[in-house]
Amino acid sequence: MGLIVQKFGGTSVKDRSRIFNVARIVANTRKAGNDVVVVVSAQGDTTDDLIAKAAEISSNPSDREMDMLLSTGEQISIALLTMALQELGISAISLTGWQAGFATNRAYTKARIKRINTERLESELARNRVVVVAGFQGLNRSDDITTLGRGGSDTSAVALAAALHADRCQIFTDVEGVYTADPRKLPKATKLKEITFDEMLELASLGAQVLNNRSVELAKKYGVELEVISSLNPVPGTIVKEETKVEGMLIKGVAKDENVAVISIMEVPDVPGMSFKVFSMLAQRNINVDIILQSSGRENNKDLIFTVPLTEAQTAVSVLNENKNRFGGGEVQVSTDYAKVSIVGAGMQSHSGVASTMFEALFNQGINIHMISTSEIKISVIIDKADADRAVTAIHDAFIH
Amino acid sequence: MGLIVQKFGGTSVKDRSRIFNVARIVANTRKAGNDVVVVVSAQGDTTDDLIAKAAEISSNPSDREMDMLLSTGEQISIALLTMALQELGISAISLTGWQAGFATNRAYTKARIKRINTERLESELARNRVVVVAGFQGLNRSDDITTLGRGGSDTSAVALAAALHADRCQIFTDVEGVYTADPRKLPKATKLKEITFDEMLELASLGAQVLNNRSVELAKKYGVELEVISSLNPVPGTIVKEETKVEGMLIKGVAKDENVAVISIMEVPDVPGMSFKVFSMLAQRNINVDIILQSSGRENNKDLIFTVPLTEAQTAVSVLNENKNRFGGGEVQVSTDYAKVSIVGAGMQSHSGVASTMFEALFNQGINIHMISTSEIKISVIIDKADADRAVTAIHDAFIH
Repeated sequence: MGLIVQKFGGTSVKDRSRIFNVARIVANTRKAGNDVVVVVSAQGDTTDDLIAKAAEISSNPSDREMDMLLSTGEQISIALLTMALQELGISAISLTGWQAGFATNRAYTKARIKRINTERLESELARNRVVVVAGFQGLNRSDDITTLGRGGSDTSAVALAAALHADRCQIFTDVEGVYTADPRKLPKATKLKEITFDEMLELASLGAQVLNNRSVELAKKYGVELEVISSLNPVPGTIVKEETKVEGMLIKGVAKDENVAVISIMEVPDVPGMSFKVFSMLAQRNINVDIILQSSGRENNKDLIFTVPLTEAQTAVSVLNENKNRFGGGEVQVSTDYAKVSIVGAGMQSHSGVASTMFEALFNQGINIHMISTSEIKISVIIDKADADRAVTAIHDAFIH
Repeated sequence: MGLIVQKFGGTSVKDRSRIFNVARIVANTRKAGNDVVVVVSAQGDTTDDLIAKAAEISSNPSDREMDMLLSTGEQISIALLTMALQELGISAISLTGWQAGFATNRAYTKARIKRINTERLESELARNRVVVVAGFQGLNRSDDITTLGRGGSDTSAVALAAALHADRCQIFTDVEGVYTADPRKLPKATKLKEITFDEMLELASLGAQVLNNRSVELAKKYGVELEVISSLNPVPGTIVKEETKVEGMLIKGVAKDENVAVISIMEVPDVPGMSFKVFSMLAQRNINVDIILQSSGRENNKDLIFTVPLTEAQTAVSVLNENKNRFGGGEVQVSTDYAKVSIVGAGMQSHSGVASTMFEALFNQGINIHMISTSEIKISVIIDKADADRAVTAIHDAFIH
């Protein structure tokens, strides 16, 4: 039939029974006539256990040695999964990142894949073997082991699918696909058959946490068709691709993000370059600023209000207070009682009235909007955290029914 | 000063405090002006834990995947030890077996080292780094990871010392060196300053269990000077080398081996080729026959009596009973109440009277000798197991005082 890359995360291979569950999924895909390349992460808590071992030795271990250490996690997984496949009578072989030809740059613990030398992989496929590849890892030009950082196994899978021109890249997770809202919070949320890369990127950054953003960007760049699918119930999941059929559905999803803090800097002098100073200062510390609001100020001052991830709020406030003299601002305030609720859908750019439908739904619930941000395929509002779940339900009802 | 290879076993790096203990030994050797290459095994029970994981998946996992799995154990150790060295301010880098250039044959789980490509190693040494190498592992011609089998890390260390022309190879263990007898059993046993390779080989095969035989053979072949030394109390240990100074000491050690069974085949026809048939049959099953006694038989029969390791006795008896018709023998008997007590010393070949001194010591204790075997540097006797400890003391008193 075709060539399919299947990626399984750490929870999917955490113990004997889950490993055999994965092996059966792979075996069925193989028996249906497909060539299969499998990418796996480290088992369950292995990576955390290894990090704990390193922490016992050093509070600041070298990045190169951390990668040497952590890459063993995936190596254990690939060996065990390959044994399970062989136990099911499937011809299979495991390959580490370097055996699979992953060439990366030098950036230990957060390396970027530069290319994949697929020679070994293709020769194993030609021998009718399922190839089980260690995700998250590669080799740099000095022949040293590197790891790709958080979400790295998704990236490994997509990069492999691109390099091998695979027909599909299936990302197996604990959810059955991408939903119009978080199904644990909103039972009437429905699973999407298809979603575009751009929509998926917006949803991921809004806290949908289904796919790692870097892997979606890579899939978009190389046109790799993704499928998000459950490893426990492998019915068809959600396809992520360039363009989706118009299904009369303007909005693909409603997402809530509580990892948000609103920072206000009062009385910033209203002269050119002040905003630049503030935001470049935060960028240098790798703090991501999201929605920005600039008040028309009193006299020659203005108030700068913006959101940052809640987890970065404390750092941001420290940086701003330490450098107050550089932008001449007044008091720095931080509020953490907010949430961001967003709708995403490529369809909205050609349809008017989407924003007003959203705002009407919130108004009907008496929910106050503090900040608004719009892009071509997304509208986000900052509201009180206490209102967030009610807001998701009301918006979902208004658009998706 | 020179280049020293230091090998540490799994117990020596089993936890944080033991890892730092090793790091301090290495750091001191480095600070004394030596270049140091360190070879480490997997931590404590790691290898057993990994074997248990594989056993959960398959009762007969593939050898290639076992090596993929087990090699992670040493990779974890080298990363942690390198972090500890760096924590002590020592410039260090870890290298896996394949990074260190270990090229082996294809025999997974029991591979032989074919050569070591020392280019990377030498360039790291030239950068004034301590190089921490994963023992027990290498890479075969297909670029697949292999392991060297039991005692493999000792072999890795000796092979590295040979390839790098190191000045010494130190094997750190839980004992302080090689003793004239087991010091746990015989407190007056003394530590030897020096011992020859041949003496060490005889002692190792007699159950002294200090050094792996393959590594001693390799050291002898390439003239690598070994030192057996304690990682907990690193005072000078025992040097193992080609020739030792004559210190007036004929006998280097007295060893007891209880892993011995005596097998008797009664009434074997006294025609040519019968012994050959019996022993080739056992050799085919990899059963090591040690001492052989052939009685002058009654009529046209003889009795064949020989020793095998206790652990292989059951297999040996089965093989013999199944093939009785091939050598026309009678009853096969096995006795397990014996022990082998041996004296080893290169000096004895040029001195008469060694055997009679030994036999006299046993006679004075009323100990009955069942079988005797002699070589140029060894005399072994088979006696009742109950007499063994008394025999060791008596012989030790007679030769070493």
